[in-house]
Amino acid sequence: MIFSNIDFNDEEPIYIQIKNNIKDMISKGMFNKGSKLPSTRELSEILNVSRNSVISAFEELKDEGVIHSQKGKGTFVSISNVYKENTWNINWDEKYNKYANLCEELDIVKSEIPWEKDLISFKSISPQGELFDIDEIKKSFLNRISLEGHKLLNYGYAKGYQPLINYLLSYMEDKGVDTSNKDILITNGFTEGLDIILSSFTKSGDTIICENPTHNTAIKLFKVYDLNIVGIDMTDNGMDLEILEKELKNNDVKLSFVVPSYHNPTGIVMRHKERYELYNLMKKYNVPIIEDGFNEELLHTGSHICPIAALDGSSNGVLYIGSFSKVLFPGMRIGWILADKSIINKLESVKRCKNIHVSFLDQAILYDYLNNGSFEKYMKKIKKFYKEKYEFALECVKKYIHTDYIMGEGGLHIFLKLDNINSRELLSRCYEKGVIFMCGDVFYIDDSGHDTLRLGFSRLDFEDIEKGIKIIGSVIDELR
Amino acid sequence: MIFSNIDFNDEEPIYIQIKNNIKDMISKGMFNKGSKLPSTRELSEILNVSRNSVISAFEELKDEGVIHSQKGKGTFVSISNVYKENTWNINWDEKYNKYANLCEELDIVKSEIPWEKDLISFKSISPQGELFDIDEIKKSFLNRISLEGHKLLNYGYAKGYQPLINYLLSYMEDKGVDTSNKDILITNGFTEGLDIILSSFTKSGDTIICENPTHNTAIKLFKVYDLNIVGIDMTDNGMDLEILEKELKNNDVKLSFVVPSYHNPTGIVMRHKERYELYNLMKKYNVPIIEDGFNEELLHTGSHICPIAALDGSSNGVLYIGSFSKVLFPGMRIGWILADKSIINKLESVKRCKNIHVSFLDQAILYDYLNNGSFEKYMKKIKKFYKEKYEFALECVKKYIHTDYIMGEGGLHIFLKLDNINSRELLSRCYEKGVIFMCGDVFYIDDSGHDTLRLGFSRLDFEDIEKGIKIIGSVIDELR
Repeated sequence: MIFSNIDFNDEEPIYIQIKNNIKDMISKGMFNKGSKLPSTRELSEILNVSRNSVISAFEELKDEGVIHSQKGKGTFVSISNVYKENTWNINWDEKYNKYANLCEELDIVKSEIPWEKDLISFKSISPQGELFDIDEIKKSFLNRISLEGHKLLNYGYAKGYQPLINYLLSYMEDKGVDTSNKDILITNGFTEGLDIILSSFTKSGDTIICENPTHNTAIKLFKVYDLNIVGIDMTDNGMDLEILEKELKNNDVKLSFVVPSYHNPTGIVMRHKERYELYNLMKKYNVPIIEDGFNEELLHTGSHICPIAALDGSSNGVLYIGSFSKVLFPGMRIGWILADKSIINKLESVKRCKNIHVSFLDQAILYDYLNNGSFEKYMKKIKKFYKEKYEFALECVKKYIHTDYIMGEGGLHIFLKLDNINSRELLSRCYEKGVIFMCGDVFYIDDSGHDTLRLGFSRLDFEDIEKGIKIIGSVIDELR
Repeated sequence: MIFSNIDFNDEEPIYIQIKNNIKDMISKGMFNKGSKLPSTRELSEILNVSRNSVISAFEELKDEGVIHSQKGKGTFVSISNVYKENTWNINWDEKYNKYANLCEELDIVKSEIPWEKDLISFKSISPQGELFDIDEIKKSFLNRISLEGHKLLNYGYAKGYQPLINYLLSYMEDKGVDTSNKDILITNGFTEGLDIILSSFTKSGDTIICENPTHNTAIKLFKVYDLNIVGIDMTDNGMDLEILEKELKNNDVKLSFVVPSYHNPTGIVMRHKERYELYNLMKKYNVPIIEDGFNEELLHTGSHICPIAALDGSSNGVLYIGSFSKVLFPGMRIGWILADKSIINKLESVKRCKNIHVSFLDQAILYDYLNNGSFEKYMKKIKKFYKEKYEFALECVKKYIHTDYIMGEGGLHIFLKLDNINSRELLSRCYEKGVIFMCGDVFYIDDSGHDTLRLGFSRLDFEDIEKGIKIIGSVIDELR
């Protein structure tokens, strides 16, 4: 059997190696056009690799037009010879650098089960689009385009659209931040904010400290920048501060990353006291804080919890990344970095180098929407709405899933730990019954969290929340 | 509730302890200036102390100016006090990495003379915003937002908005490109397209070949990625192909970068013959081509000049970067990479890692505008318009500036070489007379081009074009 000759190396993802081997075999005439390949199940057994790796390899080969599937018949080679004589065929696979390979390898969108119609998906924590005020957005668009359309559609400034910057500065002031020495850079969402910061300050091998578990996009970025990640275990009030101090003492730490509100994935909201202690520890060891303002918009008003950036006063120890994407218009990709003026001035050049600026049209629409009072009205509506959803989802979890470890104080998701049940196994069984969720392992720095999962309920209606959680609960009972 | 944490001792009067606790909370940032305190009645209940103790504490705090009462509204914190004395001052300048420092150092926006009112500026080659069809854009927006607003404002896909991708694939087919194995990634303009490619394929020290001079943004990106740049001198038909072959032989070249149409800054349009020869040379030495489709939209139709990507047939040797930004809506920041499907599949993950995706709202508006025929109508109008401007500007240059070296075959700019006149000196004298332009040196890889300049006329009216060029000409005569 020709497949048994594959020697896997440790450097590339297995599925890439399978893919390249199949292409190689075709190019060498070992398969002809129309040849039937083994099934993914057979091939995974022959090669002694996971079936998912084979599926991924086949998917890519299909995308490239190298093979195709016929329903009920199997998978077949589509081409006679990948390398026609006189074509120019560059072997791109060997040209990607480590960064590109990591971007793909860590791209969970490509490895996780994708959303399909009729699936009840607890994967998403993005806002329910039906809640957006389309009429208000129309008004804001028509207002700005009439006032300054020619300007908005032409090149703008790297730092951003000034009225939006001014609005956000005063918005941050209302959160208690002293903005007198601060400025704002508008970014393509939170992700670009973090990317700009990491690409400007870190070198391969630098150490970053963060919560463990933490936001999987952040972990991905730390990894593609080849950082040494020190994860701090969490208590009910955020990072375990004793462990934090120990790690700060023992490591030469370049930056820290903290998600203090509705922490992703645990849902923990750090209390003021712990925020203050964490801030002072970072200050003591002179480790700058990247604060992810994630979901802060959903905090109950009057809770007297301010962002860590507010504790920094007129100092320059905190880089705050803000975004409305979990409540408002993520499709626009607008976020911001708030930091010391001199830092923003530098990062403005980095932004210009990467992609010049964020769409001025979108910035102006968002500004108008925020400024005319629509945002406040909208937030009032959705806070109530998501609070009810959260309470209902929590009730369902308590009713149908028997575990003591239920985390999350609101927001758009609940985090669970199930003793001795592997959430990947749980997922594959639930998937058969039409329910999917995020396995918690993707949020862990180390190889832990296999018994955890995150349930995002923001885009589901009450009926599906109950139905889905009931199914998850019943599968858990089966597995026990 | 934060007040519940107060532990009273037996040594001090209760009201003093309440007072000190409130001051302590303010100093720790738990209350900000303007925060509302509980009423004396509420606080006495929370703390389980007599109301008189609370009243006494408040009275003393008022005397000290720490809090104040507003009749009928309540009691508020008067001071903002977060670490006034004990600031945390990080020396950020020593924390930036080489990339960030280069981004700033090479950011010509920060070093060149900025635009001011009343200046006649030949610096820009961006489109004249007044030509944009605002009414058509409004229609496209209202159409898409009504059809799929909730979807467009929520998260989309990293590769881009599929109707726009399909439109652009067929648009590229119309240019002669075989798109059967190709796919498209939507990027935040040309700049991000090049950034994604360089960040995915290059390592520090890799060699890239390009025209000398070339697009200054491209040079900046090559430098921030620490590439070894080999510039090829140009003839009237693009890169000198003899020099190119010599350099391809002598260097281990990773990638090449070519601007074949209305080359920036020289304005040269490579003929088909040289495109074909260049393509074959790169193929012979197996050096992939990054083709910058810059200003291709302004080419005369029926000129039988196709992009180099079209010469590549079903091979995978060319990465084409497209953008309408020199004719249409640069403020939206939409460009694209067209390449082999497997490459786009990889770069999609890189895009997702950098900033998830380009604004779906903008992509949908642009798609609608392109697809409903507005683009065609607009291009017809502006081709005529810019052609007239070009011819007028060329006439003025010939009339007022005495030099034999005038380059540019249309497009939005003219490139000049002035024997023995330093264009920086020329610029500073012209600036005094209210005229600015781009010094040519920023487009050169090596330390040459000091006697060259680029005149962009796209945003100037006929009167200012003549007035400005006349001034430049007179200053040149003075300097001779």
